[in-house]
Amino acid sequence: MKSTVVLFSLLVASVPAASVAAASIDRLEPAFWWAGMKEPALQLMVYGKGIQHSSVSLNYPGVSLQGVQKVANPNYLFIDLKLAADVKPGQFDLVFSQQGKEQSRYQYRLLARREGSAQRQGFSQKDSIYLITPDRFVNGDLSNDSVAGLPDRLDRSNPGGRHGGDIAGMQQALPYLQQLGITQIWPQPLVENNSAAYSYHGYGATDLYNIDPRFGSNASYQAFVAAAKKQGIGVIQDIVVNHIGVDHWWVKDLPTKDWLNYGGSFQPTNHARTTVQDPYASDADKKAFVDGWFVDSMPDLNQRNPLLATYLIQNSVWWVEYADLSGIREDTYPYADKSFLTAWSKRLMTEYPNFNIVGEEWSANPQVVSYWQRGKQNHDGYVSYTPSMMDFPLYYALLGALTAPESWDAGWVKLYEALANDVLYPDPTNLVLFEGNHDTARLFSLLNNDVDLYRMALVYLFTSPRIPQLYYGTEILAQSPKQRDDGLVRSDFPGGWKDDEVNAFTGKGLTAQQQQAQQLVKRLANLRKHSKVLQQGRMKHFSPKEGVYSYVRYADGQQIWVLLNKNNSASQVDLSRYAELMPAGAQAQDLLTGQQLQLGAELLLPARGSLLLQLSEPTAP
Amino acid sequence: MKSTVVLFSLLVASVPAASVAAASIDRLEPAFWWAGMKEPALQLMVYGKGIQHSSVSLNYPGVSLQGVQKVANPNYLFIDLKLAADVKPGQFDLVFSQQGKEQSRYQYRLLARREGSAQRQGFSQKDSIYLITPDRFVNGDLSNDSVAGLPDRLDRSNPGGRHGGDIAGMQQALPYLQQLGITQIWPQPLVENNSAAYSYHGYGATDLYNIDPRFGSNASYQAFVAAAKKQGIGVIQDIVVNHIGVDHWWVKDLPTKDWLNYGGSFQPTNHARTTVQDPYASDADKKAFVDGWFVDSMPDLNQRNPLLATYLIQNSVWWVEYADLSGIREDTYPYADKSFLTAWSKRLMTEYPNFNIVGEEWSANPQVVSYWQRGKQNHDGYVSYTPSMMDFPLYYALLGALTAPESWDAGWVKLYEALANDVLYPDPTNLVLFEGNHDTARLFSLLNNDVDLYRMALVYLFTSPRIPQLYYGTEILAQSPKQRDDGLVRSDFPGGWKDDEVNAFTGKGLTAQQQQAQQLVKRLANLRKHSKVLQQGRMKHFSPKEGVYSYVRYADGQQIWVLLNKNNSASQVDLSRYAELMPAGAQAQDLLTGQQLQLGAELLLPARGSLLLQLSEPTAP
Repeated sequence: MKSTVVLFSLLVASVPAASVAAASIDRLEPAFWWAGMKEPALQLMVYGKGIQHSSVSLNYPGVSLQGVQKVANPNYLFIDLKLAADVKPGQFDLVFSQQGKEQSRYQYRLLARREGSAQRQGFSQKDSIYLITPDRFVNGDLSNDSVAGLPDRLDRSNPGGRHGGDIAGMQQALPYLQQLGITQIWPQPLVENNSAAYSYHGYGATDLYNIDPRFGSNASYQAFVAAAKKQGIGVIQDIVVNHIGVDHWWVKDLPTKDWLNYGGSFQPTNHARTTVQDPYASDADKKAFVDGWFVDSMPDLNQRNPLLATYLIQNSVWWVEYADLSGIREDTYPYADKSFLTAWSKRLMTEYPNFNIVGEEWSANPQVVSYWQRGKQNHDGYVSYTPSMMDFPLYYALLGALTAPESWDAGWVKLYEALANDVLYPDPTNLVLFEGNHDTARLFSLLNNDVDLYRMALVYLFTSPRIPQLYYGTEILAQSPKQRDDGLVRSDFPGGWKDDEVNAFTGKGLTAQQQQAQQLVKRLANLRKHSKVLQQGRMKHFSPKEGVYSYVRYADGQQIWVLLNKNNSASQVDLSRYAELMPAGAQAQDLLTGQQLQLGAELLLPARGSLLLQLSEPTAP
Repeated sequence: MKSTVVLFSLLVASVPAASVAAASIDRLEPAFWWAGMKEPALQLMVYGKGIQHSSVSLNYPGVSLQGVQKVANPNYLFIDLKLAADVKPGQFDLVFSQQGKEQSRYQYRLLARREGSAQRQGFSQKDSIYLITPDRFVNGDLSNDSVAGLPDRLDRSNPGGRHGGDIAGMQQALPYLQQLGITQIWPQPLVENNSAAYSYHGYGATDLYNIDPRFGSNASYQAFVAAAKKQGIGVIQDIVVNHIGVDHWWVKDLPTKDWLNYGGSFQPTNHARTTVQDPYASDADKKAFVDGWFVDSMPDLNQRNPLLATYLIQNSVWWVEYADLSGIREDTYPYADKSFLTAWSKRLMTEYPNFNIVGEEWSANPQVVSYWQRGKQNHDGYVSYTPSMMDFPLYYALLGALTAPESWDAGWVKLYEALANDVLYPDPTNLVLFEGNHDTARLFSLLNNDVDLYRMALVYLFTSPRIPQLYYGTEILAQSPKQRDDGLVRSDFPGGWKDDEVNAFTGKGLTAQQQQAQQLVKRLANLRKHSKVLQQGRMKHFSPKEGVYSYVRYADGQQIWVLLNKNNSASQVDLSRYAELMPAGAQAQDLLTGQQLQLGAELLLPARGSLLLQLSEPTAP
């Protein structure tokens, strides 16, 4: 396995993505491909002045030229290849000629796939995900803080500027994350975002096939994923099929008039996400939602154009295969064309049947979110192959439950009732539940800097029948304004920069509260990592009573009980209520403190306390 | 038809429900039945001291005695009869004997059904429903204000006491309601509630087969329904299968130990309504929800007891047939046993295939409400036959939309998004949308006494793809505290009492605002009554924009457009947005003012205005 990776890296190094064999070819994408993919079709986008006038030929066993497609813009050519199932890895020349005379030549490579690539295991209930804003995490390589040709240069004093974090930084943090109990890293997009300002977040791609030099390179990204894998950590790539950055090279010379929605001129989306499934929605609103742009700096892609659709699908497959991903997080999910999303997710899940994709549908309504999950029987017959979605509904319910005073219709009951909506999902346990992300205010701040509520939130996160996801910094109580403020939410991780006075990696300068929080996350994430019950156990929960919410995860005779007390005083919990599952007089271990306790008729739950109990059957006296 | 009714009334008069043929039979229920029902089985509950020791015989063509069931209490006997499909109306004696000696005899009658009874049309989208708290509406008969033997006597000074309203009062109000545009009356329960105090609301029945004498009699109720029918108004009976009043005659001498939940001792329900369908709910919570009592004065019925289940089902059928109902409103729907609810609703809809039943599931979650609607494909296979449910989710969305300031995630958008959840319902147009009921605060008060918002609420109510329901008094801006206060919500309708200084029937003493409100309701309800488009038209709505929400109901080339403006200034609405449906340059009639207007490129929507436009195709110049 290891030798394969090395060989592979060498091959890549010899064929940089934007290499050209002759002046008339500026870009050819995907720059290389693999032998032995399930899908035999491969379409190459060729860009070069007047390339449309060229004919194309090749000669390689198992590769047949199906045709060449031209578009209105003569500088583009689309080559349709068919790869035989048994085509061998190797290389061949694509020969471009005009009037029988060769103009240029491109050495195309078919690489060997990693062993088991198709069967790769996507992230799952076994995992805990850690979302990173790479520019704000760790500056591991000072040499790429500013790069010639990329005008948005280092400026740590600017909340919307680049702060220098990079792939090398994430790689350096791997031991820390491994010890924290993290098993999946989701970095915000790392592909080139070559805009003059506000480029650090990664969602305005200017090149879909190359890592931004300020983060590293394709090779360093690949090496980072390989290094993470050695630590038992997978990498989930953040992919955007809905839009690009306004400085993407396409924008200067569009392949077709319909490549961008509204012909390339800015029309804002109405954000009316329900239009996708609302039987009463107007056609105008449906169009405005899907075709509209987020902002004028992010042209909205028209995935109904089949050439663009193929480009985007292949791009996603390329990254999975190239970088050895364990998942994709698909940004602004519903804003893309829904038929395209079916094709895109189908292709990925056909190539990688055990893979995982999580979509971002920012709605507190489980009906809206569940529409997109694989296996959902939708009223309109819509079919998706995306296995997971971000669980915004449960995120909002959790926050509401923790912050609202208890009453018959507020507080814990909202969380309790929200979970009952799981019947709307074909597979609720494959949803990603998060405590925050780069677009939300910080958890600790939303909980009014209340460490007790913070503890409850994290206990719930790691013990719920979901895939838990943290945002970097939550483990040290990162704060932000309660109202959205991206620059402050995405603050620099302490210790990620040389000479930082506080260092979360070593603990230097952390307050006692921060250290306790970090220990809590470490304990919870590692519990989750090693507990089949928490990963896959069944769930039973009990109607909130007098400020206490309680539930149990159970499997194979094992039980983990969770009791959360929002009261300002200790609560005596009557255990007879749990008789249907809890063995009478069971021994329990408090998983947060390690203490042993004997369960009697009642259990004393400390004021604002979180109890996490592992039960064992009572032993004979 | 008329002669049938008269004959029928005479029959009833000759057989009062509690009549007994001998001292040993105190009650026999149902006291009579009908020939020609679809269901051949009929079970009679006989109550009398030591009746269990009697044998039973009868002799009538087409009626066979299937058996007799005894229970632990010797004072009850259950007689199972089977009626042949062709059994003739008539009467026969049930003979009760002991050791071969006749002890008593009960003359049982099989009545002839009304013509078309089985095919009766239930309330539907064609209707507007008017909910009445009968004690608080009109005191039509002063002679029954207090009745000997019923200790809760007239006391208008007590907000929880009896105020004297009755069936005669509702009957007197029929012309008013007819002119108002009402087509269905739903009175709160009228059956006997013989408790010492707080009996006026009707939900604590002490006799399920007899009208409370302070409201009238079975015969006067029947006459009221017949009189309403002549005015084109149907009557929906409010039925409670979940519980009875603590002074019900059963309670003093329970048929079986399991007749009441928790053996007849008070255990409060946990109100955890999601337990019914929550895959994670505990058995303890499921039981606590369904078996628990509302209050100690309302014993909770155990519908799992098959004798009780049959009693309740027959009781509902009996009232439909006896009183000639056009619908049932089923109180506290999910609190009853769900298997029983299937059987109950199935029986009613089998006897009356075009009937309608609306259930009260007090949840803002459409997933929870939709679980109970006929035709829903539930995750757990649960089947219901109840065609309609109260639309609590849309009620809450409407209030929220009107009262919250506009923003991307508040205001109109909540109403817009709520309607998209209609995909959860097998038949959303058969839901009953209400502006309030006896358990909510008054609409005008919840809208901060804002007449503009009130107008929008009512325009929505009568133009939405739902069955609209008003609560009495809303048409004259009835007010209440915002927090629940039953006594004040259920205030006396002005003009319902002799010498009332204000009279809503004549208009005397109403403020100008109240008169305008009443005119608005009259206009809207009558529009709905005569408009196929509003009743059955398709719906298309447009994403709220700058404080304006707009939608259209359309059918057969007819269109009614609604535009609601929450802004404090007039809005210029760009009509090009509606081009997919609205004919360019159409003529429009403002249905609230009668004014004609010509639709150009823009429409001026007055500040806080509600526009209701009927479109006709543009005529050739």
